[in-house]
Amino acid sequence: MSAASAAEAVLDGAAGIRQWQEDLYRDLHANPELGHQETRTAGIVAQELRSLGFDVHEHVGTTGVVGVLTNGDGPVVLARADMDALPVAEATGLPYASTVRAVGTDGKEVPVMHACGHDVHVACLLGAARLMAGARSSWSGTFVALFQPAEELAEGASRMVDGGLAQLVPKPDAVLGQHVLTYPAGTVGTHAGPFLSLGQSMRVTVHGQGSHGSMPHLSVDPAVLAAMIVVRLQTVVSREINPDEFAVLTVGRIAVGTKSNIIGDHAVLELNLRAYSEETHKKMVSAIERIVRAECAASGSPKEPEFETYDNYPLTDNDPDVTARVAAAFRSHFGDAATAVGRQTASEDFSIVPRALGAPYTYWALGGTDPELYRSAAERGALATEVPGNHSPRFAPVIQPTLQTGTAAVVVAALAWLAA
Amino acid sequence: MSAASAAEAVLDGAAGIRQWQEDLYRDLHANPELGHQETRTAGIVAQELRSLGFDVHEHVGTTGVVGVLTNGDGPVVLARADMDALPVAEATGLPYASTVRAVGTDGKEVPVMHACGHDVHVACLLGAARLMAGARSSWSGTFVALFQPAEELAEGASRMVDGGLAQLVPKPDAVLGQHVLTYPAGTVGTHAGPFLSLGQSMRVTVHGQGSHGSMPHLSVDPAVLAAMIVVRLQTVVSREINPDEFAVLTVGRIAVGTKSNIIGDHAVLELNLRAYSEETHKKMVSAIERIVRAECAASGSPKEPEFETYDNYPLTDNDPDVTARVAAAFRSHFGDAATAVGRQTASEDFSIVPRALGAPYTYWALGGTDPELYRSAAERGALATEVPGNHSPRFAPVIQPTLQTGTAAVVVAALAWLAA
Amino acid sequence: MSAASAAEAVLDGAAGIRQWQEDLYRDLHANPELGHQETRTAGIVAQELRSLGFDVHEHVGTTGVVGVLTNGDGPVVLARADMDALPVAEATGLPYASTVRAVGTDGKEVPVMHACGHDVHVACLLGAARLMAGARSSWSGTFVALFQPAEELAEGASRMVDGGLAQLVPKPDAVLGQHVLTYPAGTVGTHAGPFLSLGQSMRVTVHGQGSHGSMPHLSVDPAVLAAMIVVRLQTVVSREINPDEFAVLTVGRIAVGTKSNIIGDHAVLELNLRAYSEETHKKMVSAIERIVRAECAASGSPKEPEFETYDNYPLTDNDPDVTARVAAAFRSHFGDAATAVGRQTASEDFSIVPRALGAPYTYWALGGTDPELYRSAAERGALATEVPGNHSPRFAPVIQPTLQTGTAAVVVAALAWLAA
Amino acid sequence: MSAASAAEAVLDGAAGIRQWQEDLYRDLHANPELGHQETRTAGIVAQELRSLGFDVHEHVGTTGVVGVLTNGDGPVVLARADMDALPVAEATGLPYASTVRAVGTDGKEVPVMHACGHDVHVACLLGAARLMAGARSSWSGTFVALFQPAEELAEGASRMVDGGLAQLVPKPDAVLGQHVLTYPAGTVGTHAGPFLSLGQSMRVTVHGQGSHGSMPHLSVDPAVLAAMIVVRLQTVVSREINPDEFAVLTVGRIAVGTKSNIIGDHAVLELNLRAYSEETHKKMVSAIERIVRAECAASGSPKEPEFETYDNYPLTDNDPDVTARVAAAFRSHFGDAATAVGRQTASEDFSIVPRALGAPYTYWALGGTDPELYRSAAERGALATEVPGNHSPRFAPVIQPTLQTGTAAVVVAALAWLAA
Repeated sequence: MSAASAAEAVLDGAAGIRQWQEDLYRDLHANPELGHQETRTAGIVAQELRSLGFDVHEHVGTTGVVGVLTNGDGPVVLARADMDALPVAEATGLPYASTVRAVGTDGKEVPVMHACGHDVHVACLLGAARLMAGARSSWSGTFVALFQPAEELAEGASRMVDGGLAQLVPKPDAVLGQHVLTYPAGTVGTHAGPFLSLGQSMRVTVHGQGSHGSMPHLSVDPAVLAAMIVVRLQTVVSREINPDEFAVLTVGRIAVGTKSNIIGDHAVLELNLRAYSEETHKKMVSAIERIVRAECAASGSPKEPEFETYDNYPLTDNDPDVTARVAAAFRSHFGDAATAVGRQTASEDFSIVPRALGAPYTYWALGGTDPELYRSAAERGALATEVPGNHSPRFAPVIQPTLQTGTAAVVVAALAWLAA
Repeated sequence: MSAASAAEAVLDGAAGIRQWQEDLYRDLHANPELGHQETRTAGIVAQELRSLGFDVHEHVGTTGVVGVLTNGDGPVVLARADMDALPVAEATGLPYASTVRAVGTDGKEVPVMHACGHDVHVACLLGAARLMAGARSSWSGTFVALFQPAEELAEGASRMVDGGLAQLVPKPDAVLGQHVLTYPAGTVGTHAGPFLSLGQSMRVTVHGQGSHGSMPHLSVDPAVLAAMIVVRLQTVVSREINPDEFAVLTVGRIAVGTKSNIIGDHAVLELNLRAYSEETHKKMVSAIERIVRAECAASGSPKEPEFETYDNYPLTDNDPDVTARVAAAFRSHFGDAATAVGRQTASEDFSIVPRALGAPYTYWALGGTDPELYRSAAERGALATEVPGNHSPRFAPVIQPTLQTGTAAVVVAALAWLAA
Repeated sequence: MSAASAAEAVLDGAAGIRQWQEDLYRDLHANPELGHQETRTAGIVAQELRSLGFDVHEHVGTTGVVGVLTNGDGPVVLARADMDALPVAEATGLPYASTVRAVGTDGKEVPVMHACGHDVHVACLLGAARLMAGARSSWSGTFVALFQPAEELAEGASRMVDGGLAQLVPKPDAVLGQHVLTYPAGTVGTHAGPFLSLGQSMRVTVHGQGSHGSMPHLSVDPAVLAAMIVVRLQTVVSREINPDEFAVLTVGRIAVGTKSNIIGDHAVLELNLRAYSEETHKKMVSAIERIVRAECAASGSPKEPEFETYDNYPLTDNDPDVTARVAAAFRSHFGDAATAVGRQTASEDFSIVPRALGAPYTYWALGGTDPELYRSAAERGALATEVPGNHSPRFAPVIQPTLQTGTAAVVVAALAWLAA
Repeated sequence: MSAASAAEAVLDGAAGIRQWQEDLYRDLHANPELGHQETRTAGIVAQELRSLGFDVHEHVGTTGVVGVLTNGDGPVVLARADMDALPVAEATGLPYASTVRAVGTDGKEVPVMHACGHDVHVACLLGAARLMAGARSSWSGTFVALFQPAEELAEGASRMVDGGLAQLVPKPDAVLGQHVLTYPAGTVGTHAGPFLSLGQSMRVTVHGQGSHGSMPHLSVDPAVLAAMIVVRLQTVVSREINPDEFAVLTVGRIAVGTKSNIIGDHAVLELNLRAYSEETHKKMVSAIERIVRAECAASGSPKEPEFETYDNYPLTDNDPDVTARVAAAFRSHFGDAATAVGRQTASEDFSIVPRALGAPYTYWALGGTDPELYRSAAERGALATEVPGNHSPRFAPVIQPTLQTGTAAVVVAALAWLAA
């Protein structure tokens, strides 16, 4: 059976799960959970996978769930969805809008919303699992459905790997992931090579010598030191990185001193780095460390600077072969609705799983915007202003054809390997 | 009667008030009050002045007290003491150390201590008032004793002026003030011309355009803007102010952004300025405004910057004639213990009162350090490290000869005009 | 007749011109001429074109030559070659190396060398003209051969346009150009869209106020002003330009002052800009002007800054349709030796001619490096170090198959429109 | 005999030398010589001293002349004048204006002018020598007249010391020097302590890595490095030096690169430093070296920076006792025309001689401006604009009473030690 025929056969069941899947989506959307707190979501996922005959592992890392459906000999395909929501107060006005509040990482209660569409990812992957489980004669091999926590904290994938993921699943031939974005619903977009940027934050603490504001000569002024560093860091992108390479180095936060007439004894800078190449990222980190240390030396700083990285998102660098295979399967199934999309400035921890498993991967874009709204806004050059993007309190993908397309995409892509 | 004989006559009563004055000092020290909260101190002062026969005005400004003792025709001399204490936790170990706590300007409870010696000023001026009142035959004219609140907040003098001070007192021929400093107790030090620096704080708010950290091109980056301003401001002192002029421009605080991957929309800089000349101060302010506006323009800032000044301390610029007259009287009375001292980097709001009254003034240094400790520390070049300075939790002037000297200094200086 | 058959027919004459063309090339190489001084080269070109039956216009602009060969009805194709050499002392050791010296733009005598391969361009275009003229039955329409002066001065194309080029030639359906580069000889490389960067130089003069070095307060220091501008300009690329866009802003020269103890009254900065988009270029220019003006304001500069642009090279932005047509013809004729190449950081004034004529254009890369040397160096990652590039004193394209390929490329591309 | 009586006696001869001295002055002014080229001047000086009975040493250092007049027992006083002129084109319009041209240190012919008044110094010292020689009965001891070359090059005093000066003269009890300045002619001004600033120039060469302007990532950009250093150096004065201390750090020259599109491989900065304290100077030098090295490190400079000092002028720090003695003698002789003047931002190599001889010294200001012009300009606040200063092409001290006063000043000061 060709992959295309297998896809037709498996997707035969799509109509039968539609109502269940839409209800599931609305339920997930109305009950969002912050990272590492996705116990309700994980419970629903695990129960469903178990009922479909998957071997199910719960609490992988923190709240991660892995379902393994072995269906004879053949390749192994792992598809991943992320489950966590964001501390955002929903403003969509939808009937199934969230009113949930929870305690965030800083101990404060915050509103919670699926403002990044992870509910779509969960509903689609669970739908695909149901279709794959219901049409076992059409394929052969192993289908792994992985639901990870805390993507927004850049922690969930790492925790699952640290929690022994490699012992729970066979080594995949391909790892698949998708993200609902503001492309027209009904479309899927692939991209070979670097797709989502590498993102990293860095907290730099530099030390001065405090003094009264009227006695600068007794101080090592941390305000001047911090300013010189911020100024100097501009040269990393302007002079050190190949102008053909994408690189962003942002100083998002500067904190120096407490009042006007006291020269403080340290400064804190919080940096964010973006790149589409690990080599570029390494050059930036090396340049930052060199510059910060040198500016401290220029100031006569009494103590070594400190560097702390956090919010580490690896580069999502789609394997060309895997991507080509998925793109071909998409074109065959979706026709013109299968597109090629450009790289995105967003970041993901998705690739941590395939990297840990030594498996090639691809990650694609799933359209979620009402096609009419998209077309109309695009014609007026108003996409950025009229279509609420991911993380917006008004982010609201249309339920259909988003869910159907996202479900079919997982099935079609998986069958590019698993078709009997 | 010569001024010297008059002084001898008035100071004849000094021995008689010594015990009362020392007890008063210890009581004031043990019961410090923050600015505008000096109700207990003001009550003691007002009651004493009234009992001495002064016309007494209370609640001038906020808690200010003015006593006017008219004693026949003649010149008018106003002597001033400040009453407020600081939010410092006393660490002197003295038997009369403060354990007081109070609610500060930011609504938080803080420890309170007379860490700047204003208790000395009050005790000396009240002692001088008592001596002057007790020896009316030795002098002629009007003696005004003014007790101001909130010097540490740079507010008390202004509030008294705004509260109608000019209507309460005749125009003085001379205004006198003193501050206990870490010179040897028993000495008084005068200085003609600029004595205490002009001090001013300025809060500068500049505006950028917020954006995600990965999209700098959609932002006007306030971190870069703030850094460029801090860097550029260094040129005010290095290039614009005459190198022969004292000028300090400190950026004590920089606050930009909240997290690494968000480009914020504004930056706040808190500056402190010091100068010994109003012209230099004006040049600095003008340069700061020019530079900040221009750097905002360089960044393409969408909104005008905002400048807010606070903690405004005027230049204390001792009148040469008044100072010469006082210095001569000091030399005559104190001999070698009357010294000439250099200018100080501290600031005061003292001169606001004589400026408002159109009167010339002088402000002198009163020694408060144990002479033996001073000599020993000076010999080892250890004055800065071994003698706790003003605002230190261990600031502890010796009671005598400090109080006697400070009291005599007010009397001797006043009689340089009022001697019968 | 198909374009391919026409090409075969026209190129039938290639063997017959080979010896003449190689001799011509060596003669041109041995007799290089600086921009606007290409009288000998232009003379050879004009004489040859005239003998072939072209209508010839000489002295177009300065030394430009245009030959028009009208051959019945049909499209118009214009092919361009540049004629000028560089002030470089040849170090190739070739038997036909240049020993020529000439007086440069600054009035000084300099060595001259065809270090950029314009001799290849002239020889190829003249060879193509000969083949086209010799096979008129195989094509129909108008073939224009344009030889421009002073490409290296960014002036030749503009001068020809200003000299009335549009009156001399019919409006082309396509304009063609090529450049010999360090790709393997025998290959041609096409690229749709931005191919060569927009390049521009800008001389910025800013004004200070001179003073003795010991009296900075009487000056507006141009050294500080220049430094602040250089520092600030780094933010154009680091913060203002979309990180997805290529942009380079280099300050190649800073000149301030004459000696250490004199503060001068002006500073000169020489900038170079590169971009692959006119919008990006405009943003850079606008940012530069904004920043320079603002930094002058920050310094209190007494006089407006001056901006002078020079060495203006427009973006070479290959028309997609024209490029596709040429690429298809190349693939048909050259097979695998027809490649797609990436964009180049070099710049050209080529596109000024088609822009002025309102015609679409494409410009391609012609390989000039010995294929064995190329392969060997590439394998060792030593292309940059072992293959002398354009403008190097050792730049030495191999004569064959470079000339044959470059000649065939012009014929094949032209016939994509002109095949009978 | 009191010093005052001795002075009266010696100055008795003043009228007798007046015509000779004025003629000498006009001759010197019309025949100025550049540093180390003062052969004509030195010849005149040596001949005159010899004729007066001095032991004369010529060619001390380069063109230096030392005359020693031993006149019995007693103290030793050395008075110094400098002889060199400046490469300035005279524009005074005086009948005795210079039209001389000479070959400067850079091998180019330049106009020469006594634009700094060294001709006054020579004429006065030679006049004083004549008076002292002519009235030997009025004093006792040794009078040394030293005429040094090349003060403007900061070299003459050092060369004389290196040339064995200490072997030629007895150790002085006091060394005296004077400079004609734009104070009213007829006055002399003394100043105890730091009088003329320490001045030093420093050439800093920093290294980058060259590249084409379009490939910044292959470079270490010296323009950015130089700019960052200039910016950072501002913090030396603004933050590191005690605001009570005079300190100037000027970057007079920046030279980076040759053209816009080439990134050069080095940058040259020429700095000038001024201070009134050697400790401040040391702090500045140390800060400069620290900052330059650190900024090179921040840029990843491939090579250590180089520091070269030149034009080293030491601090002229007048000995308090010597100055007091001279000031008293001046007051006694000149009355109100003996003033106290403030410190000057100019620099001198004068003190190198007394430092080398281990002798205390004082250096005073000699008024040279027409008193009426001075008064009138001062009243209108126009001194700086209407009175041409030293080094101006229009610098023109009035001959009298300048010469008489400058001659008397040397005599009076010397006799404060030598009076019999």
